[in-house]
Parts: sequence; structure tokens; C-alpha cells
Amino acid sequence: MQLERIIKQIQPLDETAMQLARARQDTLTKPRGSLGQLEELSIQLAGMTANPFHSVERKTVILMAADHGVALEGVSAYPVEITQQMVLNFLRGGAAINVLARQANARVVVVDMGVASEIEDASGELIRRKIGLGTANLAKGPAMTREQAIESIQSGIEICEEEISRGVEILATGDMGIGNTTPSAAIACALMNQSPENIVGRGTGVDDTVLKRKIAVIARALDVNRPNANDALDVLAKVGGFEIGGLAGVMLAAAANRKPILIDGFISTAAAMIAASLAPVARNYMIAAHVSQERGHKLMLEWLGLKPLLDLNMRLGEGTGAALAFHLIEASSLILREMATFDEAGVSDKE
Amino acid sequence: MQLERIIKQIQPLDETAMQLARARQDTLTKPRGSLGQLEELSIQLAGMTANPFHSVERKTVILMAADHGVALEGVSAYPVEITQQMVLNFLRGGAAINVLARQANARVVVVDMGVASEIEDASGELIRRKIGLGTANLAKGPAMTREQAIESIQSGIEICEEEISRGVEILATGDMGIGNTTPSAAIACALMNQSPENIVGRGTGVDDTVLKRKIAVIARALDVNRPNANDALDVLAKVGGFEIGGLAGVMLAAAANRKPILIDGFISTAAAMIAASLAPVARNYMIAAHVSQERGHKLMLEWLGLKPLLDLNMRLGEGTGAALAFHLIEASSLILREMATFDEAGVSDKE
Repeated sequence: MQLERIIKQIQPLDETAMQLARARQDTLTKPRGSLGQLEELSIQLAGMTANPFHSVERKTVILMAADHGVALEGVSAYPVEITQQMVLNFLRGGAAINVLARQANARVVVVDMGVASEIEDASGELIRRKIGLGTANLAKGPAMTREQAIESIQSGIEICEEEISRGVEILATGDMGIGNTTPSAAIACALMNQSPENIVGRGTGVDDTVLKRKIAVIARALDVNRPNANDALDVLAKVGGFEIGGLAGVMLAAAANRKPILIDGFISTAAAMIAASLAPVARNYMIAAHVSQERGHKLMLEWLGLKPLLDLNMRLGEGTGAALAFHLIEASSLILREMATFDEAGVSDKE
Repeated sequence: MQLERIIKQIQPLDETAMQLARARQDTLTKPRGSLGQLEELSIQLAGMTANPFHSVERKTVILMAADHGVALEGVSAYPVEITQQMVLNFLRGGAAINVLARQANARVVVVDMGVASEIEDASGELIRRKIGLGTANLAKGPAMTREQAIESIQSGIEICEEEISRGVEILATGDMGIGNTTPSAAIACALMNQSPENIVGRGTGVDDTVLKRKIAVIARALDVNRPNANDALDVLAKVGGFEIGGLAGVMLAAAANRKPILIDGFISTAAAMIAASLAPVARNYMIAAHVSQERGHKLMLEWLGLKPLLDLNMRLGEGTGAALAFHLIEASSLILREMATFDEAGVSDKE
């Protein structure tokens, strides 16, 4: 199975490249450590790419869309047709992620993993990997079959490897799907053994009544489905989503191919938890772009052992946080490659 | 006097432009408020520039260097000649700020405000505004005369207005000067009536012995000089520095000309406190780029009422934090200008 192959392929960070990067940082014309997280990041990138003089110039955001049967329970502030409408907006370049990806000089790859309607797209740039017309309602039974869960991950792997074969050097994840903070919160609750109150947030902006309902729906979903925390495929199948599985596949393939993968917000982080449960070493290739406003996000990042780069009170998804973080990652890489050393610049070192 | 003219010229933010920007944010294809601090920033930029469709594409970092008599007290981990050597490194493009400014497509303007030696520069790009060969030792008496303090601010005003006349749309501040966290901490202590223990940090990386000495030196400087907290020129003259005065002038001129001004780290923030004491309305034009590792920085930003965009554990100065934040500010501006509205994209709004 492709999934098994990819998981076996994931290697630890390259210690030699990290040592070389660390040694170089200490010769650059600045007090040692004075660029803080940028220095750590450059060393991590060296370990991921096995290259102290890596480049992260060629960037892609993989943006996966799908619908969710649980939206019928009234857990979102927006109607379901928004998912399809936003996919068209992405393809026309009018959404926030398009603006931010253009600024970062990143390609946006839009994937239909399971939107509830057939999308007519004249531009033809949509990648069609529809696994179903939305998941089943996870409050009443499994969101999908185990086979569909595997298929969603394998689609993500294939799409990511296609981008890598085109020469991409760094990837980021993005999501679109009305209702998808609900399966994401359910995944986090299942894997962390947390109660929904500590994880569930307001998503796109629900009021107190809907928030209570959302918490109750997730409690019911966990009770009805009893996802097995030791089996990430079971968790994904029972309380996940097609785009969440797809993004987990993207992350696994990035790690297997030694490419840094930027994790966006709440939904992407739920996908990262699935990926890390399947292959713990994959965590080393993940960079958390930001901590979102969504309630449980901080706890989820801590569970993954990731320290977010940004905290701008955002809660949009689409990969918008990740697109902003591209600049910081590229900065850390450029510092390592372009700064002068004490010797080159004729600058005295510490007394 | 030029300083008085500039202070009188500073106007409040433009409420009409801010209302237009806020109204437009609410029509863009995303849940209202979901871009968090980016949305607030775009509205603030509209108020500064009096234009909801502002541009912040043309960027300049004004990087001011000077030496400090107090370095004789042994308050830094680095020798004094580093200031001059780093100025040459800036002019040759090898320092961290050069790398980060290139990435952000920003010009770097290097100014000698009072380096302790004459700088031979073949490239000729150095702006020469030497007020003295370093300040006097503030632990023993005033760092400079009141006339020199005014001259330093006026130099900053002139350099900033020269950049504005070249068409710059946003400015950032940067500093270089061995020993300059000491006058910066002294300014913060004087204006906030704080004890040195709460403000003084390790600068470029001093050990416990030097940290204690630094705290004692600042306590002595405040005791010997008795700077008057109600007279920012007195504070700058007695315990400040030439580059700090210059940067305060840059900030005042930016505000007077309705240009956003990005405040870098600890030293720039001390300059911002001088500028805000001279003209409280100038605060509205300031954006805090980041909170640095230096101890008192968070308190100083709170005193100014500024919320930093980044927290990356940096402590380099030179404008490096500000150069990173350029990307975020440009992102907020592009969102407002380039995103599609619900109507344009045919996307349904909230139910």
C-alpha cells in the first residue's frame, strides 16, 4: 500500500546538516542567538532538507475543500453552498489565500476532496479527487468508511508528490469546508482524550446557542462512534473529513520527501495530528504557522510539540496563516545563505 | 524651529478613511473579523494615510548608528570598534538587516549620527550627520547638551522628509551602537519612573556580572543627571544617544507626513517614547514590529499603547524585526485592495 510505503520512507532530521547550519549561524555578523526563532528555524530547515544551504523559494499551498454531513446539525454560521462558492472564488483568485499567496510568490493548488455538489469550472485548474458528496453525519454514525479514509490520505500523497516532481521546495496546507471545525475538534478530542468544552470554538463565528449545540454534537459523535485513539485511520473515518484526510496525506508525503510543510490553523492541525499518529517522525518536518483564535488550537499544537510563528488572532483557514509564515521561513533561510561572516566582513567577534 | 513645526503638523488619524476601510473589510469574502490583527492593521493604515486604498509598497529602513561614552563602564559584551565595522558591513550589504530588507524589497538608508571614528566609505552611500564622536559617559554627567539633543532630532526629521520626497510609503527604524541598550533603558526608567531592575536586559548577551554592573550604571546615571520626565528633550540630552534622538526625529516626521512608521526593538522603542512624549498624537502612526527578548521591552510597548506583531525571541536591532513585519503590513494592505467582495464573487453571506 502506498500509505505504508510513504510512512516507511520518513527519516529523522539530518544531524550533519543541522550541525553545519548551527556552526555557520555562529560565524555570522550578529551576536550568537540574537535572531532567536529565525536561527532555530534555519537549523531545522537544514535538518529537513539535509542541506545547510537549502532554498525555500518555490512554494505551494495545497488547499483542499470538502463538505460535512454534520453541517445538517446547524453547527456553522454559514450555509453549506459556501464551500462550492468559495472553491470558485479560489479558482478566480479573489479569496484571502489568493492575495496572500501572490504576495508570497506561492502557487495555490485547489483540490475538490468531496464538495457536496459537482463543480463546473471553466478554468480547468481544479484538481478533482471527490471521494463523496460530503461525509455522512458523524453525529449519527461514521463520517466515512475506513477505505474512504485511506483513499483520502492516498490522494493527498499523490497530489503532494506531483507538486514535488514539479520542483516545489516548501509546501503549506489550507482547508475549506463549511462545518469543518466540528470534525477537527472531534479528532482532537479523540486523540488527546479531551472533553469537547476544552477544544470546541466558535469556528467562523457562531453564537453561544450554536456553540453549546456544537459541543453537544461532538460529545454525541464521540459517544456514538467510539473512535479508537490508537488507530488514527479509525479516528479519521469515524469523526474526520475528506479534506482532513487529504491534508494528512500531503503532510506525510512532504515528510517522506524531506520537504518542510507549513501547518495552517485548526483544521490543518487536526490533519497534522492524524499524520503524526500514523508516523510520529513526520512531526519533525512540520512548522506551525500560527496559533488561531479557535479554542483548542494551542493545546493541539502543544500535543504535537510545535511552537507557532505567528499569533495574529486569525481564524479564517484556507492556508492564510501559512501564507503569511512563508515570509518568515524564507527570511530564516536567506539569513543563513546571504549574511557575511565575521571574517568576510572584517568585524571583531565578542571580546 | 523645525521641531516645533513638525510637532504642530501631526494630525489625528482620518476617521472617514477608517470607516470606509472597516466597511470594505465587512464586504470581503471571509467571515467578519476572521483575519484578526491584519484587519485592524488595514484600518489603522487607512487612518494614517487618509486613504482606504493606501499602498505600502515603497519601503525604507532608516538605520542610525552612534557610539556611547557609557561603553567605557564595560556594559557591553562587544568592543566599541564594532559600531564602525558594522556600519561598513551595512554599506556592503552583508548584515542581517541587508538580507531582510532585500527580501522585503526595502531600501536601507545608513546614517552616521555620531560614530566614535571617522568612517571612510568608498561607496558614498553613508549619510553623514555626526553630532559628536560618541556621547559623553552618562554615568558621570549628561550624555549631550540640550542643543545636541535638538540637533539629533532635527537631523532625523530632515532625513525622513528627504525619503518621503523620494516617494516612500512606509518607513522603519533601525539602530546600531555598542552600548546603546544602556541609554535606552535609562530613557525608559526616566519616562516610566521604573527601577532599572525591571527594565535592564542582557543586550547583545552580557553575563550576570555585567548585568549587575549595567543596572548599577543606570541607577547612577539617573541619580547623577536627574532627568526631568516632563521634558523629553532633557531626558534625551542627559541619558540618551545621538541615534536615539535621530530615530525620534524620523518618527515625528513620518507622523507629520501621514506615513506609517514601524518601530523595531528596544532602542527604537526608547526613541518612540521620546517622540511620543514630545507629540502624543505621533503614537497613532507607530506600528510595533515585534517584542524583543530584552527585559523591559514589553513594559515600554504597553506604556506606548502598542501591540507588537511578532514575538520571535529576537534581540539584534538594526531594524531586523521591522523588516520582517513589513510583510505582514503589506499583507493587510493587499487584503483590503485585492480581495473580492461577496457580491463580486457570488458568495452567500452569513445566514
